[in-house]
Amino acid sequence: MAATHSDSDCIFCKIIKGDIPSFKLFDSDKTYAFLDIGPLSKGHCLVIPKYHGKSLQDIPDEHLSEILVVVKKLATATGSTNYNVLQNNGRIAHQVVDHVHFHMIPKPNEAEGLGIGWPTKQADMDELKKYCEEVKAKM
Amino acid sequence: MAATHSDSDCIFCKIIKGDIPSFKLFDSDKTYAFLDIGPLSKGHCLVIPKYHGKSLQDIPDEHLSEILVVVKKLATATGSTNYNVLQNNGRIAHQVVDHVHFHMIPKPNEAEGLGIGWPTKQADMDELKKYCEEVKAKM
Repeated sequence: MAATHSDSDCIFCKIIKGDIPSFKLFDSDKTYAFLDIGPLSKGHCLVIPKYHGKSLQDIPDEHLSEILVVVKKLATATGSTNYNVLQNNGRIAHQVVDHVHFHMIPKPNEAEGLGIGWPTKQADMDELKKYCEEVKAKM
Repeated sequence: MAATHSDSDCIFCKIIKGDIPSFKLFDSDKTYAFLDIGPLSKGHCLVIPKYHGKSLQDIPDEHLSEILVVVKKLATATGSTNYNVLQNNGRIAHQVVDHVHFHMIPKPNEAEGLGIGWPTKQADMDELKKYCEEVKAKM
């Protein structure tokens, strides 16, 4: 049995416990998946670690290893070929529920599914090189 | 040594091999990470499985287990608290390079980082329930 960590005020922890109903698709020792009830497209679902944490950095490594395997299963089971996998950290980054969740959002056409804005900036290669060394030193 | 699978025409496979330079941040048996040279914000980086595949569904489970652990490391090393983790499958879903890659995109303010469009639809609960059973049968 994996170590658990739960928050009695968290809506997703309540869903995991069954105190709030959900359209459950997958349930294991560490991972839970269900349909999003405010879908961006048909097949939009959520994969969450059972371990409660707000940000990805709050979740122990062993509780992350199964997440993408379940996302993959869901993509196949929903028949999705075009889709986005998204996990948001922080209000400004569009996180609404403070329990880590991965969206699997089918993209059947331009109008449905995730909308993406991509404001690329021209990078200065010398600055990037210096920044790379800074980050690497913290890895 | 993990099983490898490479495509000689793939730009990310060339980066993994070192035939194309990159601002490398992490390199293990299965996983490679580097700075995006067209960043949406400072700290925007990519985490890729060394196993070549276009869609998430093309990557064997054992090559997915380390990905999110590395994303977490990068978020910490870049000092990110607000950020998005995104993986796109298919042109219409904004995939540009046909080798699975996870973006870790810091969201320091409204203007920089990932832009998100969220065209939620009102779901019919009876339809969702029926659909849930259909998907579950394929899991």
